Amino acid sequence: MEEDWFLLPFELELQRAHATALLEAGIFNDDERDAIGAALEQIKAESSQGLPPVSDTEDLHTWVEAQLVQHAGDVGKKIHTARSRNDQVATLLKMYAIDTGGRIAEGCSQLCQQLATKAIAWAELIFPLQTHCQFAAPGSVGFWALRYAVACERAGRQLDGAVAFWREDCPLGSGAVAGSSIPLDRNTQAILLGFDDPSENALDSTSTRDACLELLANIAHLALHLQSFATDVIAFSQTQFGWTKYPQAFGTGSSMMPNKTNPDAMELLRGECNSIVAAHNHAMLLMKGLPSGYNRDLQCIKPIVHDACRKLIDLLEMTTCFVDALAFDSEKMQASLGYGHIEATLRMEQKVQSGMALRDAHHAVADDLASGIKGTDVAKLADTYQTIGSASPAETVRVAKRILARLTSNGDAKKSLTWAADES
Amino acid sequence: MEEDWFLLPFELELQRAHATALLEAGIFNDDERDAIGAALEQIKAESSQGLPPVSDTEDLHTWVEAQLVQHAGDVGKKIHTARSRNDQVATLLKMYAIDTGGRIAEGCSQLCQQLATKAIAWAELIFPLQTHCQFAAPGSVGFWALRYAVACERAGRQLDGAVAFWREDCPLGSGAVAGSSIPLDRNTQAILLGFDDPSENALDSTSTRDACLELLANIAHLALHLQSFATDVIAFSQTQFGWTKYPQAFGTGSSMMPNKTNPDAMELLRGECNSIVAAHNHAMLLMKGLPSGYNRDLQCIKPIVHDACRKLIDLLEMTTCFVDALAFDSEKMQASLGYGHIEATLRMEQKVQSGMALRDAHHAVADDLASGIKGTDVAKLADTYQTIGSASPAETVRVAKRILARLTSNGDAKKSLTWAADES
Amino acid sequence: MEEDWFLLPFELELQRAHATALLEAGIFNDDERDAIGAALEQIKAESSQGLPPVSDTEDLHTWVEAQLVQHAGDVGKKIHTARSRNDQVATLLKMYAIDTGGRIAEGCSQLCQQLATKAIAWAELIFPLQTHCQFAAPGSVGFWALRYAVACERAGRQLDGAVAFWREDCPLGSGAVAGSSIPLDRNTQAILLGFDDPSENALDSTSTRDACLELLANIAHLALHLQSFATDVIAFSQTQFGWTKYPQAFGTGSSMMPNKTNPDAMELLRGECNSIVAAHNHAMLLMKGLPSGYNRDLQCIKPIVHDACRKLIDLLEMTTCFVDALAFDSEKMQASLGYGHIEATLRMEQKVQSGMALRDAHHAVADDLASGIKGTDVAKLADTYQTIGSASPAETVRVAKRILARLTSNGDAKKSLTWAADES
Amino acid sequence: MEEDWFLLPFELELQRAHATALLEAGIFNDDERDAIGAALEQIKAESSQGLPPVSDTEDLHTWVEAQLVQHAGDVGKKIHTARSRNDQVATLLKMYAIDTGGRIAEGCSQLCQQLATKAIAWAELIFPLQTHCQFAAPGSVGFWALRYAVACERAGRQLDGAVAFWREDCPLGSGAVAGSSIPLDRNTQAILLGFDDPSENALDSTSTRDACLELLANIAHLALHLQSFATDVIAFSQTQFGWTKYPQAFGTGSSMMPNKTNPDAMELLRGECNSIVAAHNHAMLLMKGLPSGYNRDLQCIKPIVHDACRKLIDLLEMTTCFVDALAFDSEKMQASLGYGHIEATLRMEQKVQSGMALRDAHHAVADDLASGIKGTDVAKLADTYQTIGSASPAETVRVAKRILARLTSNGDAKKSLTWAADES
Repeated sequence: MEEDWFLLPFELELQRAHATALLEAGIFNDDERDAIGAALEQIKAESSQGLPPVSDTEDLHTWVEAQLVQHAGDVGKKIHTARSRNDQVATLLKMYAIDTGGRIAEGCSQLCQQLATKAIAWAELIFPLQTHCQFAAPGSVGFWALRYAVACERAGRQLDGAVAFWREDCPLGSGAVAGSSIPLDRNTQAILLGFDDPSENALDSTSTRDACLELLANIAHLALHLQSFATDVIAFSQTQFGWTKYPQAFGTGSSMMPNKTNPDAMELLRGECNSIVAAHNHAMLLMKGLPSGYNRDLQCIKPIVHDACRKLIDLLEMTTCFVDALAFDSEKMQASLGYGHIEATLRMEQKVQSGMALRDAHHAVADDLASGIKGTDVAKLADTYQTIGSASPAETVRVAKRILARLTSNGDAKKSLTWAADES
Repeated sequence: MEEDWFLLPFELELQRAHATALLEAGIFNDDERDAIGAALEQIKAESSQGLPPVSDTEDLHTWVEAQLVQHAGDVGKKIHTARSRNDQVATLLKMYAIDTGGRIAEGCSQLCQQLATKAIAWAELIFPLQTHCQFAAPGSVGFWALRYAVACERAGRQLDGAVAFWREDCPLGSGAVAGSSIPLDRNTQAILLGFDDPSENALDSTSTRDACLELLANIAHLALHLQSFATDVIAFSQTQFGWTKYPQAFGTGSSMMPNKTNPDAMELLRGECNSIVAAHNHAMLLMKGLPSGYNRDLQCIKPIVHDACRKLIDLLEMTTCFVDALAFDSEKMQASLGYGHIEATLRMEQKVQSGMALRDAHHAVADDLASGIKGTDVAKLADTYQTIGSASPAETVRVAKRILARLTSNGDAKKSLTWAADES
Repeated sequence: MEEDWFLLPFELELQRAHATALLEAGIFNDDERDAIGAALEQIKAESSQGLPPVSDTEDLHTWVEAQLVQHAGDVGKKIHTARSRNDQVATLLKMYAIDTGGRIAEGCSQLCQQLATKAIAWAELIFPLQTHCQFAAPGSVGFWALRYAVACERAGRQLDGAVAFWREDCPLGSGAVAGSSIPLDRNTQAILLGFDDPSENALDSTSTRDACLELLANIAHLALHLQSFATDVIAFSQTQFGWTKYPQAFGTGSSMMPNKTNPDAMELLRGECNSIVAAHNHAMLLMKGLPSGYNRDLQCIKPIVHDACRKLIDLLEMTTCFVDALAFDSEKMQASLGYGHIEATLRMEQKVQSGMALRDAHHAVADDLASGIKGTDVAKLADTYQTIGSASPAETVRVAKRILARLTSNGDAKKSLTWAADES
Repeated sequence: MEEDWFLLPFELELQRAHATALLEAGIFNDDERDAIGAALEQIKAESSQGLPPVSDTEDLHTWVEAQLVQHAGDVGKKIHTARSRNDQVATLLKMYAIDTGGRIAEGCSQLCQQLATKAIAWAELIFPLQTHCQFAAPGSVGFWALRYAVACERAGRQLDGAVAFWREDCPLGSGAVAGSSIPLDRNTQAILLGFDDPSENALDSTSTRDACLELLANIAHLALHLQSFATDVIAFSQTQFGWTKYPQAFGTGSSMMPNKTNPDAMELLRGECNSIVAAHNHAMLLMKGLPSGYNRDLQCIKPIVHDACRKLIDLLEMTTCFVDALAFDSEKMQASLGYGHIEATLRMEQKVQSGMALRDAHHAVADDLASGIKGTDVAKLADTYQTIGSASPAETVRVAKRILARLTSNGDAKKSLTWAADES
C-alpha cells in the first residue's frame, strides 16, 4: 500500500471514468453510478491527509474496491467488471507519468526563467571561459548561465512532447492481457481520462512500461545538466579563484578545519543527481528479458519512478533558489582574466579580418605570445563576438530576453491538466 | 581516424556549407569557394571505398583540412576560419544522429510491417496467452505479433519526433566555446545543413551531447522490446510446447547432444541487445560531472553511439528476416489450450452478461473449476472478445490493417534526407 | 540523521576507542575517559528503541558529540581532538561493511544449507535439464538445487575473504585529509576497532569508498544467482509443465482470472534483485571522476549501501523459507522426460564406450533418432553419469553432504564479531 | 572466430590436458595422444602471427577440432569425447580471467612502483590539499601520489586473491549441463590446467560466469581510481594554478586557440575508463534473469571482458609512463599556499597541545582568522603532522619505502603462470 499510495488521485479518477463506461454498457444503472461517484468522493475526502491507511489488503486497487463495497454497497462488487489490475496499473502509471512529466517541465521552466533573468544581470561580468579545464576565452557570466537556461528549456520542451505522446493512447480496457468479452466503450474511458484514444493492443498495454522508461530517460538527461552546473559552481568557488560569493545558506563549515566553508549544496546536487541517472538503468535492468504478459516484476517500477521524480522536483526547486542566491566577485574574475592569454583567438581573428589566412594567423599569434607581445584589454574583447549565440554581453542579453518571452507565451498556451489538478 | 571515419559524409557536407558561409562573409571569393567544392568532390570520390586512409593526423577534421590544402591550395588554410573542431564535431554528431535516427525509424517501420503482415496470416491461430508465465487466456498468435508491431511503430514515431527536434538548431558557428568575432551568417550554415536555426548558446552547443544521449535512450527502449520478443520465441520453442516451427537457418545444433536444435538467433538477439542498453548507461557515465566547455572525454562518445546504432540496425534487419521465416505448429498450440482452464475469465464474463455481479461470478467460476465443470471450446472463445485492441481474430486483422495503412501513408509523407542520401 | 542512524552502534564503538587513544595521548585523564564511557552507555541505552531522535543537528556525528557534552560535560568538547568527520565516517562505513558483509555471508550459509539439505531429499527426482531452454538431458532435481547451493557457498566465501581484507586497515586518524599533528596512537585505535593496522595514507582513506563498492559488487553477483533461481522456479511452475507444487503462501490469485495462481514471490525476487544490481552501478556513477579529498557527494553512498544490504538480507531469508516450502510433482516431471530425446547424449556415450569415435557416434545417434529407434528408460539413465559433479542421484548426494560438512566446520571456525554483536 | 580468437592459447592447453585425460580413461592410446600433441604444436606454430584464419566454422572450438582431424587424422574425431563446448568455453574463460587478472595485477604493481618512487622525489614539495574542492591543509605532493600507490597496491592484491579463488575449481568435465557417463578423471584435467580441483556442480559450471563478473568488478573499481587521478591532474594543471609542468607528449594544441595546451591524455584516461566501468554493468545486464543451463547469450560476455581488460592494461601502461613524465612547478605551488588559511587546523592543534579543549580551540582560531592574525609559515607546518599515514614529508618517504619493499618481496614470491606464459 505504501508503494502504491501516490497513485491514489489517479485511481479515483480511473474508477469514476470506469463507472461511467459501465453505465453506458448497461452494467450499471444511474443510481449505481451515482453511488460509486459518492463513495469515491468520500474516499477522497477521507484520504486528504495524504497518509496511507493501515491495511493488510494486497494493494491500492484492492483497498479502493473494498472501500467502494463498504461505502456504496453491492454495486462495489461490479466495479471491476471488464477490468484487471493489469490494465488498471498500466493506466495509472501513464497518468502519473503525464502528470509528473508536466510538473517537471514546469520546474524546468522556472529554473530556466531564473537563469535567464540572472543572465541579464550578469551580462557585463566577463570571466575566463574554459575548455579542457584550461582558460580559453573571455566571456560573459550571463552567457555561462544561459548554457543552463537553454538546456532547461530544451528538457522542458522534450517532456512536453513526451507527455503529448503518452496522452495518445489509454491502456484501460486491456484487461489482464487479452481485453474483455464485455463490450465496454474504451473510447469513452480514454476521453474521460484525458487520452486521445484507447490503445490498440492489450498485450502491449499490459506488458510494457514505455512511458515510465521515457520519463526516466528524460529526467536522467536533465540531471546530467544539473550535475555539470554543480561542477561548474564548485570549480568557480575554488579557493584560489574565489569567483563566486557562495551563498552561506547553501554551504557548511568543517568539523576539523576552522578556515573552511564548503559548497555542500552543489556537491549534494551533483551527488543526488546520480540516483536519477541510476534509476533509468535500474528500470532497464528490471524490464530486461521479461516475457509477454503482465509479470509481477513490473510492480517494482513504481518506487523507481516515483522516488526519482520526487527527488528531481526537489532538486530543481533547490537549484532555482540557489541561482537566486548566487553572486559573483567581479574583482576576482577580473584578476583571473590575466592568466592564459585568453585573448589569443580574438587577436587571431583580427588578423583574419585584415586578410591573413586563418592558419597563418594562428601561427602568427602563437609567435606573438611566445615573444611576449601584449594584446588589448581582455574584458573589452568579449564585446567583439559577432556570431549568434556567442559569449558577448549583447548576445547574452538578446538571447536571455528571447528565452523569457518564449517562456511567457508557452506558459499561457499550455493546457492545464484536469484529473490531478487538485493534488498537492 | 578509425573512430572518426563514419563521420566523413557529414564532414564533407559541413565543409561545403561552411565554404558558402565564408563566401557570403567575404572571406572567400567565388573561385576559392569553387576550389573547395571541387576538392571536396575529389575527397569524396577517393574515399568511396569506405576504408579510412592510413594517416597519422590527429583526427578526421585535421585530415580533411590537410586534404583540402593539398587539393585546393592555399585557400585550404582559410577553411577553418570562424570555426573550431569543437563546434564542428558537435554538428557532425547531430547530423549523424539525425541521419541514423531516420534509418533506425525506417528499420522499425520495416519490422512493424513484417509483423503486421504476419499478424493477419496468424489471426486464426489461437494459443494460450500468459501472465506471470502462467497460461491465462486464449488469444490469437497474430495478436501476440501485433504487440511488437505496435511497439515498433511507437519506437519509430518517437525517433521521428526526436529527429525533428534535433533539426531545430545547428551548433556550427559556436567556435571553441564562445563563438567568433568574425560575423559569419550562422543562419545560412544552419539552413544549408538541413537545420531550422543556429543554436542559441555556444557553450551549450559545445559542452553537451544531448542528441546522442536521446538517440541512445530511444534505441535502448527499442532493444528492450526486441529482447522480450526473443524471450517469447524462445519460450514458445520450448521442447514440451513446440509451438514454433523454429526456422533452421536461425538455429544450430549441439556439439555434445545429437537431439538438440537450439534457438541461437533469438538468444543472440536477447544477448546482443544488452550492448545497446548498456551503451546508454556508458554514455551517461561519460558525461557525468563534466565541467562546461569542450572536454576531450567527449570524444569517447563517438564509438559508443556508432557501435550501438550499427548493431541495432543489424538486429532490426535480422529480426525482420526472422519474422518472415517464423512459422507455428497449430496442432501443438491446440493441444496446449487444454491446460490451465484458460476459458475461466470468459466464462465469468458470460455470467456477468447474464446479470451476476463480477465478484460473485468470479467465485462461481472458481467453484465450477474446482468441481470439474467443463466450459465450451476454448479456441472458439477467442471470438467473443469485444473490446478494442483485444485478442480476437477480428480485432487482430482490424488493427493490423490499420497499422499497415498508417505505415504506407507515413512513408509517403516523410521527407528524404539530403546530405547523406548517397551513403551506403 | 535518518540516513546516518544505522551507523549508531559503530559510532559508539568508535567514540569509545577514540577516548582510549586520547587517554593514552594524554589529552584525556582517567576520569574524563570514564565520563565519556558512561555517557556512551547512556546514549546506547536511550537509543535502544532503534528510532532516530527528532533533531536538527547536521548528522549523527554532531548529534553524538552534543549528547556527550550534555551527558559528560566539558570533556565532550575534547572528544573530536585529532579527528574529523571525514575519517570518522570512512571508518564507520568500513565497520558497517565488515559487519553486514559477515551477516550476508551468514545468510548465504543458511540458504546454502537449506538447498543442500533439500538436494538430498530431491536426489532421486529425475527431470529434464535444459540448455538454450530446450530439454537437454535427464538429471536430478537435487542436482539443480545444488547449482544454487554451490553458488551461495561461493558468494559467502568471497564475502568472508572481502571482510578479512577490509579488516586489514583502519581509516580512523586520517583526519580531514592529511592526518593530524597530535600524536595519537592509531595502532591502538585500529586494534580496539577490530582492524589489523592503521591505514597508510590519509588521503586515500578519506577520498575512497572501496569497501562499500566491493560489498555492492559482491551482493550484486549474488543477486544474479537469486534471479536465475527465480527464473528457473517460474519456468518449472509453467502451466503445461506443472513440475512444482508452488507453495500457496508465496503466490497470489488474479483479480480477473479465477483460474490463476501466480508465482508472485519468485517474480518479486527476480524484480527486487535488480535494485541490488543497480545499487552498484549507482555507487559507481557517484564516485566517477571525484577529485581527491572528501567531497560531500560521498555522503550519498550511505543509503545506497544500506538499502541494498537490507533488501538482500531480506531476500536471502525469504528465499531460504521458500526453498523449505517448495515441493515437486514427480508424475509431471516423469511425463516431461518423454519429450526431446534427452537420452541421446547418454546413448551416444554408450557407443563411445563400445569403441566408436565420438563424432561417428554423434551421427549414429542422430540417425537412430531420425529413424525412431527408441532408447532405454530415461530416468534410469541419470544413474549412468560418472563424472564428478554430474547430474546423477549419487553425485547429488555426495556433493550435498560434502557441502553440509564444510558449512558446519566453517561455522565453527568463524570468529564472531564483537563491536556490533548486540545490534538487532 | 574473431571474437573467440583471443582464447586460442588457452584452447590449445585445454586440448592437451583433455587428451591426457582421454589416454588415462582408455579412450586414446599413446600414439593417439601423441598425434594430438603434435597437431596442437602445429596449430600453435601456424597461429603464431596472431591473426585469426579466414574460416566459416562456427567458433574457435569447432575450428580447432577440424584442424586436429586434418593434422592428426581420425583420432581428431575422438577428441570431443566426454566434453561439450559448454564446459570448454566456461573453462577457457576462467583460464583467461586467471591469466589476465594476473597481468593486470602486475600492471598495478608497476604503476604502484612508479608512484611510490615519485612520491619519494616529491616528498618535500608542499601544496594545498583539498576537501570539497577547497584548499584545506598543506601536504606533500608525494603524499598525494601515495594515495594512488596505495590504491593500486590494494587493487593488485585483490586481483591476486581473486585469481587464487578462481584457480580453486575447474569447469572442464561438466559437459553440456549434466556431466558425462564416461568416467574421465576430472582431477587430472584440473591439475594439468593449473586448478586445484574439478568443480562440484556441472550446472553451476556451465550456467555462470562469476569469474568474468568478478574480474570486471575489480577492474571497474580500479578504473575509478584512475579517473580520480586524471581529475586531480587536470585540476592541478588549471591555468591559474599551473601546478603541473604538464608533459607535452601527453597534451595537444587547439585548432582555434593559439594559446592553449590541453591535458588530453588525462581527459582521455578519465573518458576511456568509463568503458571499463560500463563493461561490468553491461555484463550484469547480460546475465540478468537467464535460466539454468548454457544459453547462447553467454557468448556475448567474451568481447565485453576481453575489450575491457585490453583497454585497462593499455591505460595502466599509459598512466605509468605519464607519471614518469609528470613534473611540478614548486614556485606556483608555493604561491598557492597563501590562499585559504590552510594552516588553521594545525594552529588549532597547537592550542589543543597547549591544553585548550578542541571545540574552544576551533572557535579561537576562527576568531583569529577573522581578526587577520597571521600564523607561521605554511609549508613548514606540514612537518608537524605526527599521525601514521599523514601528509608530512617524513611519513611520505616512510610509507613509500615500505610499499616499494612489499612490491619487491611480493614480486619474488608470485608463482609464474605456465599455460599462457609464452603468449605475447
